[in-house]
Amino acid sequence: MKTILGRELPDYIEGYGPVTPFQGASKDAGIKTRVAAKLTSVNPCDKKVLDNLDQAFDKLNLKDGMTISFHHHLRNGDYVLNRVVEGLAKRGVKNLTVAASSIFPIHEPLVGHIESGVVTGLVSNYISGPVAEAISKGKLKNPAIMQTHGGRARAIESGDLHIDVAFIAAPTADPYGNINGVYGEAACGTLGYAVSDAEYADITIAITDNLVPFPACPIQISQVFVDYIVQVGSIGNPAGIVSGTTKITKDPVALIIAKRAAEVIKASGLVKNGLSFQTGAGGTSLAVAAELKTIMQREGVVGSFASGGITGYLVEMLEEGLFKALFDVQCFDLKAIDSFRANTTHQAMSASMYGNPHTKGAVVNCLDIMILGATEIDTEFNVNVTTGSNGVIMGGSGGHSDTAAGAKLSIVVTNLIKSRLPIIKDQVMTITTPGESIDVVVTERGIAVNPRRVDLIERLRCANLPLVTIEELKALAEGITGVPKTVQPLDRIVAVVEYRDGSVIDVVRGVS
Amino acid sequence: MKTILGRELPDYIEGYGPVTPFQGASKDAGIKTRVAAKLTSVNPCDKKVLDNLDQAFDKLNLKDGMTISFHHHLRNGDYVLNRVVEGLAKRGVKNLTVAASSIFPIHEPLVGHIESGVVTGLVSNYISGPVAEAISKGKLKNPAIMQTHGGRARAIESGDLHIDVAFIAAPTADPYGNINGVYGEAACGTLGYAVSDAEYADITIAITDNLVPFPACPIQISQVFVDYIVQVGSIGNPAGIVSGTTKITKDPVALIIAKRAAEVIKASGLVKNGLSFQTGAGGTSLAVAAELKTIMQREGVVGSFASGGITGYLVEMLEEGLFKALFDVQCFDLKAIDSFRANTTHQAMSASMYGNPHTKGAVVNCLDIMILGATEIDTEFNVNVTTGSNGVIMGGSGGHSDTAAGAKLSIVVTNLIKSRLPIIKDQVMTITTPGESIDVVVTERGIAVNPRRVDLIERLRCANLPLVTIEELKALAEGITGVPKTVQPLDRIVAVVEYRDGSVIDVVRGVS
Repeated sequence: MKTILGRELPDYIEGYGPVTPFQGASKDAGIKTRVAAKLTSVNPCDKKVLDNLDQAFDKLNLKDGMTISFHHHLRNGDYVLNRVVEGLAKRGVKNLTVAASSIFPIHEPLVGHIESGVVTGLVSNYISGPVAEAISKGKLKNPAIMQTHGGRARAIESGDLHIDVAFIAAPTADPYGNINGVYGEAACGTLGYAVSDAEYADITIAITDNLVPFPACPIQISQVFVDYIVQVGSIGNPAGIVSGTTKITKDPVALIIAKRAAEVIKASGLVKNGLSFQTGAGGTSLAVAAELKTIMQREGVVGSFASGGITGYLVEMLEEGLFKALFDVQCFDLKAIDSFRANTTHQAMSASMYGNPHTKGAVVNCLDIMILGATEIDTEFNVNVTTGSNGVIMGGSGGHSDTAAGAKLSIVVTNLIKSRLPIIKDQVMTITTPGESIDVVVTERGIAVNPRRVDLIERLRCANLPLVTIEELKALAEGITGVPKTVQPLDRIVAVVEYRDGSVIDVVRGVS
Repeated sequence: MKTILGRELPDYIEGYGPVTPFQGASKDAGIKTRVAAKLTSVNPCDKKVLDNLDQAFDKLNLKDGMTISFHHHLRNGDYVLNRVVEGLAKRGVKNLTVAASSIFPIHEPLVGHIESGVVTGLVSNYISGPVAEAISKGKLKNPAIMQTHGGRARAIESGDLHIDVAFIAAPTADPYGNINGVYGEAACGTLGYAVSDAEYADITIAITDNLVPFPACPIQISQVFVDYIVQVGSIGNPAGIVSGTTKITKDPVALIIAKRAAEVIKASGLVKNGLSFQTGAGGTSLAVAAELKTIMQREGVVGSFASGGITGYLVEMLEEGLFKALFDVQCFDLKAIDSFRANTTHQAMSASMYGNPHTKGAVVNCLDIMILGATEIDTEFNVNVTTGSNGVIMGGSGGHSDTAAGAKLSIVVTNLIKSRLPIIKDQVMTITTPGESIDVVVTERGIAVNPRRVDLIERLRCANLPLVTIEELKALAEGITGVPKTVQPLDRIVAVVEYRDGSVIDVVRGVS
C-alpha cells in the first residue's frame, strides 16, 4: 500500500491497526461526526474536591489498557504527567496508553514505565528528549502515534482517540471545576490543547495547586466538563513553563533568512489590510515577524490577526494596532499571559478551533502567511520535523501540518546547512508535512518556490528575488558538505505518523 | 399513569410519543450521553457568506417535517424567526417543528403558519402572546412541548431534540461565522440560549445585520459551528430587545414583600461571604436584590456570584464589590451589555452551563438563593407559571424549575391576591415546578415555609418572622375573594410540560 507521496506502508500495523494511507491534504472532506460522549451527571449536593490523587484513583474504575490524557501547556515544567503515571504504576495498572499533546525531557520517568510495561502506548503531537529516544530504540510495546495539534482534536472529537480519564493540569481551579490558566504559580495562559480532552473524556480530573473560591474567572474550561478537582502542592516548575521574554535572534545568517522571507511575503501581494500571520517562538521566526512589522508600518497596513502559540512580540504588534486580534492556543511568555488576561481581542482558541480539519472551518483556514521550520526537506517539498538526521524522533508536527495546509502562503525558513549536514534531500527520513502544502523554502543561499505555485514564482520573479530550484539548493549544499550517508533504520515500526485527517502519512522505524 | 405529584397522564400522547412521568427533581441522575453530532467539514478555500435567505434555502435539503431552531435573545424585537418561517412557507415546506427557546407577541405571524399547516410542532421554554393563545385554542396540530432553559439544552445535547437547521440571530458576525452579541444595532449581550443549537444542529446558519471583518471579537459562538452567514437588513428592533434600564418597583405592597423576602434570606443563615443569588428582572425581584444589597453592605458580606438574566442592578452590585462575578445567560438591559463587554468577571454561560441537569454540574447547582415568581401555587408548593387563571398558556418555566431545583433556598415572592383572584389553590392548573424544590412563599400577608424544610422553619421562627401555613395563606385569600371557580379545560392535550430531565410533569389541555 502506498501513500500519494510514494511511501510504502503495510496495510495493518501490529499495535496500531489498519492503515488508511495519506491521499492528499484536502482529500478527506465532507460530512463528519463528532462522537457521542458519556458523562456522569452531578446533583446540587455533590462535592467534587478531593484531597489527593489517591482519592481520585479510588473513584476511578482503574483497569489495564486504559487511555489517560494530558495537555502540554506546562511544557518542560510539567509535574502532573509523571505524578499520575507513577501513582497508577503503584496501583499496579498495566498497558496504559498515554495520550499527551506533547512530551518533553521532563517526562523522562515515562521511560521506566515504558520498560516495565506500565505504559505500552503513546499518542502525542510532539515528543522530545529521553522518551523520544526510548521510542526510537524500540522500547515502547506498541508504535507511538504521532498526530498534529488539529489532528489530535479531530481524533478525540471523532472517537478515533477515546480517552478514559483526562488529567488536566490546572493553574487555577475552583471547587466546582472551572479552570483558568492565567493565575497561580504555574500560570501558562490559554489552555487550548486541553479543551477536547475535557469535553470528550469519560472522566475529567483537574489537578491544581491553586484552588480558589468559586468561580475561577476568567473561566477557560467549564465546570460542566469536570468530574473532580484534586489539590496538590505544585503542578509545575514555572521556570520550565514560560520564558520571561522570547527574543529575536542575533545570528547574522538567521537575520538574512528572515529578511528574505519578508521579501517573499511582500512580493506575494499578501501584505494588505486584513492580512493574517503565524510564526513560531524561535529566534528566526520572530525575526520574520520583526521584518513584517517594519513593512506593515511603512505601508500603513493593518492586519486581521496573528495566531498560534503567542509571544510578547505579537502582543506588541496587537497593542500597536498592527493586528486587530490574536488567536492564542498557547502562551509562550509572560507578556502573552498578561495580554490574554487584559485584552478582549486576545482570544483563546481550542486546538480544535485552531486546526481540526473536521470542523466547519478552523483558524488555520483563515491564515494568509505561515512561517515554518524544517529538519529536512525533500525535492518534492515534503518536510520532516519528526526525526533528526540520525533517524531518532526529536519532535513532531505540532501545528506544522495544520497551518501549512490552511495558509495561503507557507514559508519554510531554514539554514541551508545545519550541523554540517545539508537540509535538502532526495527523500526526507520521515514525512511530517506533505510538499503540496509548502509553498516556499527560504535559505540564506536562495529561495525555492514549489513548482505548483506558478502564480507565486511569477510574482517573486517580478520582484527580482533570488529564485533557485529546490534541486539547485540541494546541489549547492551538497557541494559544500558532500552527499551525506543515509541512515538505515531497522525494520521495526516504532511510530506511526498520522496526518491531521487521521490517515497515515509515514511511519518511523527503529534505530539501533 | 401518574406522576409523583399525582397528575394523571396518558402513557402515550399522539403527536408527542411515549410519556415518562415525573418522578422527583433529582431522580433522573447518573450516567448520561451527549449525542453524536453531524457536521460538514470546511476546506480552506470554501466561502460561507450568502447574500440572502433564499441562497441559504438553496443550500439546504429542505423537507417537510424538518425541525428548525431559534434563540430568543432578541425577545420581542426579533425579526429572524418570522422571516425564516415565512421564507420556508413560500418554498412550500410543511409540517415544520419550530424549536424556539422562547416565543413572544412579535411572533404572531406564526399563528397563520400554524393554521395553514406550515408549522405543526412547537418546542419552547416560554410562550406568550397570540401564539400561546392559538395553542390553547387547539390550533397547533401536535401538542407544543414546553421545556425549561436547562431542559432544552439537555434535550438538544442528549439527542431528544434533534435540530435540522439552527438559525442564529447574530447581532455581529464575521465572514467565517464567529458571532458575538455585544456589537451592532441589535446588540443583546450574551447568547447563552443559542449555544447548544449551534453545536448540535445538522446545519447552523448565522443571520446578521452587522457583518464585520474577521474576527468578530469577543467571539461567543465559534466559526467551527457555523456553516453559513446570511446578511439581512435588520435582525431586530432594538426597542423590543433590551430595556434602557430595568427599575425597582415603587408599588408599596411589592416593596413589603421584597422586605419580607430579604428577612427570610437573612434569617436563613445564607448571608455570609461567598453567597450566590439570582433574581428576575421584574420590579419586585429587583426590590429583593436592593434589600439584599443593604444587608450585605451593612454586614460587610462579599458574595460569590449573581446569575441568570443579568440587569444593571446586579452589575452595580458587581462593580461595588458585593459579588465577585456574574454568570450571564442573557442581558436584560444596556448596562448589562456594557458590563459584559468590559468586565472579565462578568462571564457568559450557555443554557447548558446554566441549568442542564445532565452535565457535570450546572451553575444552578451552585446557587444559594433564588427569587421566583408564580401565577399559582398549590398547598403542596407546586408552582404554575405556564397557564393563567383562565387556563390559557401565558408563559412557561424558562429557568424557573432549573433554579428552584438547584438553589439551597428558593423563595416565591407574590401578592396573595392578583386581579381579584387568590394565588394559592388546592391544585394549580398546571404544574411547572414541583413543590419539593420550592422552600418558601412570601406574600404581603405572611410567609409560608415548605414543611419539608424543618431546619428553615426553625430558623425563621427564631427570627420572629410571621410564619403561617400555606393552608392558612390560602384561607386568608379566600376569605377576601371567595373561593374562585375552577376553569374546566377541554380534554384535548395542547401542550406537554417537560421537567428539566425530560420527564413529563404535566400537560396543558385546551380551552374553548
